[in-house]
Amino acid sequence: MGVVVQKYGGSSVADADGVKRVAQRIVEAKKAGNSVVVVVSAMGDTTDELIDLAEQVSPLPPGREMDMLLTAGERISMALLAMAVGNLGHEARSFTGSQAGVITDSAHGKAKIIDVTPSRIQAALDEGAIAIVAGFQGVSESSKDITTLGRGGSDTTAVALAAALAADVCEIYTDVDGVFTADPRIVASARKRDQISYEEMLEMAACGAKILHLRCVEYARRYGMPIHVRSSFSHKTGTWITDETPEDDTMEQAIIAGVAHDRSEAKITVVGVPDKVGEAARIFEALAEAQINLDMIVQNVSAAATNLTDISFTLPRADGQTAMTALTRIKDEVGFAALQYDDQVGKVSLIGAGMRSHPGITAKFFSCLAAAGVNIGMISTSEIRISVVVEESQVDDAVTATHSAFDLDSDEVEAVVYGGTGR
Amino acid sequence: MGVVVQKYGGSSVADADGVKRVAQRIVEAKKAGNSVVVVVSAMGDTTDELIDLAEQVSPLPPGREMDMLLTAGERISMALLAMAVGNLGHEARSFTGSQAGVITDSAHGKAKIIDVTPSRIQAALDEGAIAIVAGFQGVSESSKDITTLGRGGSDTTAVALAAALAADVCEIYTDVDGVFTADPRIVASARKRDQISYEEMLEMAACGAKILHLRCVEYARRYGMPIHVRSSFSHKTGTWITDETPEDDTMEQAIIAGVAHDRSEAKITVVGVPDKVGEAARIFEALAEAQINLDMIVQNVSAAATNLTDISFTLPRADGQTAMTALTRIKDEVGFAALQYDDQVGKVSLIGAGMRSHPGITAKFFSCLAAAGVNIGMISTSEIRISVVVEESQVDDAVTATHSAFDLDSDEVEAVVYGGTGR
Repeated sequence: MGVVVQKYGGSSVADADGVKRVAQRIVEAKKAGNSVVVVVSAMGDTTDELIDLAEQVSPLPPGREMDMLLTAGERISMALLAMAVGNLGHEARSFTGSQAGVITDSAHGKAKIIDVTPSRIQAALDEGAIAIVAGFQGVSESSKDITTLGRGGSDTTAVALAAALAADVCEIYTDVDGVFTADPRIVASARKRDQISYEEMLEMAACGAKILHLRCVEYARRYGMPIHVRSSFSHKTGTWITDETPEDDTMEQAIIAGVAHDRSEAKITVVGVPDKVGEAARIFEALAEAQINLDMIVQNVSAAATNLTDISFTLPRADGQTAMTALTRIKDEVGFAALQYDDQVGKVSLIGAGMRSHPGITAKFFSCLAAAGVNIGMISTSEIRISVVVEESQVDDAVTATHSAFDLDSDEVEAVVYGGTGR
Repeated sequence: MGVVVQKYGGSSVADADGVKRVAQRIVEAKKAGNSVVVVVSAMGDTTDELIDLAEQVSPLPPGREMDMLLTAGERISMALLAMAVGNLGHEARSFTGSQAGVITDSAHGKAKIIDVTPSRIQAALDEGAIAIVAGFQGVSESSKDITTLGRGGSDTTAVALAAALAADVCEIYTDVDGVFTADPRIVASARKRDQISYEEMLEMAACGAKILHLRCVEYARRYGMPIHVRSSFSHKTGTWITDETPEDDTMEQAIIAGVAHDRSEAKITVVGVPDKVGEAARIFEALAEAQINLDMIVQNVSAAATNLTDISFTLPRADGQTAMTALTRIKDEVGFAALQYDDQVGKVSLIGAGMRSHPGITAKFFSCLAAAGVNIGMISTSEIRISVVVEESQVDDAVTATHSAFDLDSDEVEAVVYGGTGR
């Protein structure tokens, strides 16, 4: 057999029992004849506890020291996991991000992987050992300082190592059975997908599905690394994320991959912007300077009589205050009339590679929302996605109606909890 | 000014307030014009908690993984300390043992320092930053694995770094005011020494004084690095450990440096050993094979009638069971009559470089013990030390009587608690 990379999140190794359970699974993969590399996150609440300690000693801790602090979390979980595997009679060696050859840039707290040189991991595998690697961390190429990768960092570590080791598969273990056609907490009849393409998964992740982080899927697509998302609490097959054409005719050639939703955004409307060249640009420059990532942007057609226009956009709620401050500062310069802030919004997205070749999807989507009494605020589309902004209170209705309208409902109701991944 | 290395133990940085208090002291040293390097242990009970976790997942964790686990403790304390110093307006950078250039052998859990190459520390100092270094840890020269130095490791890290950086002084901060003439918990009139020589401190440490570990003092003596042991809770001068002749005539040229005691040993007597060449050697071979370090050894004169002798020795109580098993195994081979095990013993030692040139010290010591009703079990001497084994219940009486007999009592009673150092 080949090389298998497995990633376990913090909830899977939250305590000693969890560590022992995960060790058992790792040994199963080894006994099946694989070379096994394991990427692990910090145990349960460790990271939050460390952040809390940092806040007690400094209101604004330097990024370098914050990364030094937080990386202690994986050091603990990986060493314990290596011990637990050893206790089952198989040799395991733990490696920090630095030891595993995860080379990053110097952006503390959100470093990007620029190279992976896993010679020590390869040596451990060659000697028959299981390698346990700290997720979420690396070492900066220039300063040799310890870095952390930020959100989705452990998943990305796993995919990056899998690519560098030419692994057969990167298995991401989580607390749900795989990728579902909608959040089962909202749609009880949501179905687990057996397969989904990279591009569909990218759109799902970008639209609020929390099961995998965007950057991990991007990395996997770039290197063509198959990801198998599955539960660490069962042995069921999960969801395969690949670029292959699915072979299961009945389900996987469906037009629609799933319905995603996102409650983390807010909407800002700049009212009464003079419709002159450069005014809109000035607004977006100000937001860019404030380091704010915008999602959807809509500009109304200018009313001829007044020559004024409105510009609306969505952004992460966490950035709302910063954006409002930045815009207020340029109010006189740009000469707009007012700012409106609304954080009672949600985004609902319909995603499917099949919609490329099926006209009429948009019309069907909008009419089903109308039938459900859902008012559409903003719209944006890509080749394989349609997203609408609705009132937050109508998100559940919109998701349920859409899931049903596109025949995604399962006959059986799966009893799962749809949770997010941590790091 | 020059380079100052400061070491803070786990009790000094037990919580966020402790970290902030230590940060304040560090900044004081920096403001006084020094280049400051700080060595720090893990916070309070962190190490015990990590050991507890390890025991939950594996009864016999591999040394490599145990070291990986335990070194997370200093990573946390040093990052927090660097943040707290930064918050006071001074740049601080934390470094792991590996980053600090602490190169060791591969003996996990009790590694020995074989080289110190502190180029990153020197660079930080050259740029005006304060360097915060993880105590107790290093990296093995051969395998590049993380190692821990075992007991007294953080003190040794501090002295080793001080030597490599040609520091002016290595300050060891603890929770007592310095080195005392006896344990103040037993002798209320014990006095703090202003100065003590390396060799006296070595004997004190070897005889049970817990304030500094033997290996740290040995390292300091080898490199002639002055150690200043002092309290992190006050600004009083502590005890200087140097090889200089003391200048304070009144106190420091005293014949006796202090009275040490040790309750950690047990005594084994091998009864009725045939007094033939090689029999005693066979006994000590068996103990050596079992990796047991003996302390005092006494062989009685053979009784001519029987041609049998008794051999007694002391050893760490923790090794008692192992030693008894090893000896029982050779009972028939050697042909001794019986084994006696006694862990209700204590060792009291009188230490002073002055006793070299002062005859009669031994007689005075024994007569004061006799006057106090203390029965002497075993005796051993070095050039600057006399030790006796007594019943454990008589240790306090022996220490008090000796301290008084050699005029060590202070006029004032110091209100301190004499505690041990952790790592």
